[in-house]
Amino acid sequence: MVPKLPIILINFKTYIQATGDKALALAKICEEVSKQYDVNITVAVQAIDLRRIARECDIPVFAQHVDAITPGSHTGHILPEALVQAGAKGTLINHAEKKIKLLYVMAVVRRMNELKLETCVCAANPQISGAVATLNPTYVAFELPELIGTGISISKAEPQKVEKSVELIMKNGPDVIPLCGAGVSKAEDVTAALNLGAKGVLLASAFTKAEDPKSVLTRMAEAALKA
Amino acid sequence: MVPKLPIILINFKTYIQATGDKALALAKICEEVSKQYDVNITVAVQAIDLRRIARECDIPVFAQHVDAITPGSHTGHILPEALVQAGAKGTLINHAEKKIKLLYVMAVVRRMNELKLETCVCAANPQISGAVATLNPTYVAFELPELIGTGISISKAEPQKVEKSVELIMKNGPDVIPLCGAGVSKAEDVTAALNLGAKGVLLASAFTKAEDPKSVLTRMAEAALKA
Amino acid sequence: MVPKLPIILINFKTYIQATGDKALALAKICEEVSKQYDVNITVAVQAIDLRRIARECDIPVFAQHVDAITPGSHTGHILPEALVQAGAKGTLINHAEKKIKLLYVMAVVRRMNELKLETCVCAANPQISGAVATLNPTYVAFELPELIGTGISISKAEPQKVEKSVELIMKNGPDVIPLCGAGVSKAEDVTAALNLGAKGVLLASAFTKAEDPKSVLTRMAEAALKA
Amino acid sequence: MVPKLPIILINFKTYIQATGDKALALAKICEEVSKQYDVNITVAVQAIDLRRIARECDIPVFAQHVDAITPGSHTGHILPEALVQAGAKGTLINHAEKKIKLLYVMAVVRRMNELKLETCVCAANPQISGAVATLNPTYVAFELPELIGTGISISKAEPQKVEKSVELIMKNGPDVIPLCGAGVSKAEDVTAALNLGAKGVLLASAFTKAEDPKSVLTRMAEAALKA
Repeated sequence: MVPKLPIILINFKTYIQATGDKALALAKICEEVSKQYDVNITVAVQAIDLRRIARECDIPVFAQHVDAITPGSHTGHILPEALVQAGAKGTLINHAEKKIKLLYVMAVVRRMNELKLETCVCAANPQISGAVATLNPTYVAFELPELIGTGISISKAEPQKVEKSVELIMKNGPDVIPLCGAGVSKAEDVTAALNLGAKGVLLASAFTKAEDPKSVLTRMAEAALKA
Repeated sequence: MVPKLPIILINFKTYIQATGDKALALAKICEEVSKQYDVNITVAVQAIDLRRIARECDIPVFAQHVDAITPGSHTGHILPEALVQAGAKGTLINHAEKKIKLLYVMAVVRRMNELKLETCVCAANPQISGAVATLNPTYVAFELPELIGTGISISKAEPQKVEKSVELIMKNGPDVIPLCGAGVSKAEDVTAALNLGAKGVLLASAFTKAEDPKSVLTRMAEAALKA
Repeated sequence: MVPKLPIILINFKTYIQATGDKALALAKICEEVSKQYDVNITVAVQAIDLRRIARECDIPVFAQHVDAITPGSHTGHILPEALVQAGAKGTLINHAEKKIKLLYVMAVVRRMNELKLETCVCAANPQISGAVATLNPTYVAFELPELIGTGISISKAEPQKVEKSVELIMKNGPDVIPLCGAGVSKAEDVTAALNLGAKGVLLASAFTKAEDPKSVLTRMAEAALKA
Repeated sequence: MVPKLPIILINFKTYIQATGDKALALAKICEEVSKQYDVNITVAVQAIDLRRIARECDIPVFAQHVDAITPGSHTGHILPEALVQAGAKGTLINHAEKKIKLLYVMAVVRRMNELKLETCVCAANPQISGAVATLNPTYVAFELPELIGTGISISKAEPQKVEKSVELIMKNGPDVIPLCGAGVSKAEDVTAALNLGAKGVLLASAFTKAEDPKSVLTRMAEAALKA
């Protein structure tokens, strides 16, 4: 089951603007724009908000992390089976703010595959993109940590790194979908990312903290359609 | 706001029998027994199931872990404010299956206090019970990790350790409520724990994996009432 | 065996000025000043430099970290027995730059006691000082992480926190020796710390990165003697 | 500078039989056999024993772990520059007993390259072998964790996994040297590993805990020569 591309993947993080009722409201905006433009807009939400958003919004919903565990005695962990039951479509993993050990990345990818869930592995530089692509996740999202949240788009600041990342992902994991993140804040950043070979973008604050999130997302969806 | 005592605190862990719809069904049983006997039965559920159970059951609901963060860029973490919005009453922390650094225990207790949430810090031996009691959480739950899940009750196997734990908790944190866990599987284990000075019990599989969980819990509630 | 007090405990960290041959040269200066003033000057050095310095210098030598392991399959860890064989007198543990889980602090203290080695547990605020003092290490060193390396002395910037820390250490662990660190850079900081109830100081860059380390240490030793 | 192949890489772990004076004695045996048969025998020793063994034995000496840090405030860490000064030739990294985050593997490989030190990245299954080979370390050592210390040789129990590992290493990192570990306990295990495409073996207890370590190693060196 191949995801619809290009994809706009939005990380709600633990922003207060993207928690609880506000998380639902933002997800509703994503649903609306997604339907209007027929563009894949996926939201990665906090575990606590996941079930509700997955039930009430007709867009794919991701977790932001999952543990490579099977059911049992794992107090305080995120169980892959719980994602399924809550209606999640997949998960982010290895984000710069929640890095995990290499063996864990592989174990998560395997468990997600067993459960027919998608995995987006984040990578902090092109070499890491290439390394994790060998593990065959659904997506690899390349984000330079130093640009996250800055509004300085990686596609502009470091286009050669985006190209290198896409190249290594395609070489090491031909079925893996390359995404581009870090500093994606305007429609033109979406265009630039797609022109450099990415099949989608990963963004966070540019949408969740925007004064007018719908307007920001609408322009990005238009750019995604055109590219 | 002092919690109603004694308390039966039930950890749902990531058992498949205590995930999703089954978690809700178990929590409903807890609610029913709690009302029938007027005993405080609190459930510590997976983050993904928390909001739903807190909304649909009239008993206190805890998380199994929370991160000592403030709102912001913390992908994949559990935000204290999200607990509040989801209707949680508190959280477990430092469980043997999710141990955290000492400074983090303190930071969690502080953040929970700010948000008027309760904290139950788990401790793996009497000395640790005494150490974390100095940080003034709501509860300290003493569980010998080697007895967790065995059905061998700590109150019977190591009564002097339970007494030592209660003693050190009361000495170092006079307002802290001492609980006793590990191997609590029968009504008589509840009685024994309360007789040794604990003000409640922490249990998991004896209820969540029971053939007849309602019957198990009913007998424990009766024992709690009598003690 | 009670350590000689007051103590000046110097953390060599992983400064290049305190690595390899330069570490030995600095330790030799400590030995010289220690003998001249009959003051306990203890150095906490990198594991790789420990054996050589312990063999060649007649002062107590600490490790900067040790693992709570017994001999066996623990690739890449620091074995307590290896400290003994190398001639170490003890170890720092739980430094702000190497924080460990609470249960580990206790396990390290126990293993060190078995081997007749000393333990200096670092604590990042007065409450943590009190919590770790319940575990009966040899020393608790209170260092506000935000002042480490600044040259702003904790005894001047936050004297009431030093007093609170000393008070909680003495209350919860009457045999524990309270030390004071963070920003100790001049003789007067040593005097201030001792006047606030500390029995010694923990310092790092003020000595290891000084233009004239011997002169800095000499003045501190004089201040320690007078206090 | 290409390492001499095949290589017998011996991990001393934290065995009491391979600590302190006994570590030196074992390393002396390695030196003797290495010279007699002109085979590369490299030892990975505890940080505390490293300098002494590197000074007193004329064989390559590895650390068992190193941190991806530069000189500075990193109490309790292993500084790459300290390895150089102590005479180390390289380091193991990411051993099953000391797993690290993916980004750290890359950072260690880079820092080691800057300092002209070798890196042997351990991998717990063929896919991980392939992933870490993209990062261009000197060696990738494939060890199934469940066979470590069992004496059941991976080359016999799971030859197809060894072949797959070698294949993925050569595909993703043509300059990387593939090693094979886990259960290597006899001369014939060395032969089998080399026949499956590995350029050397990684072993531990079969040598360090042997009644007659010299005899064990001599037979392995003969097998390495013949293969």
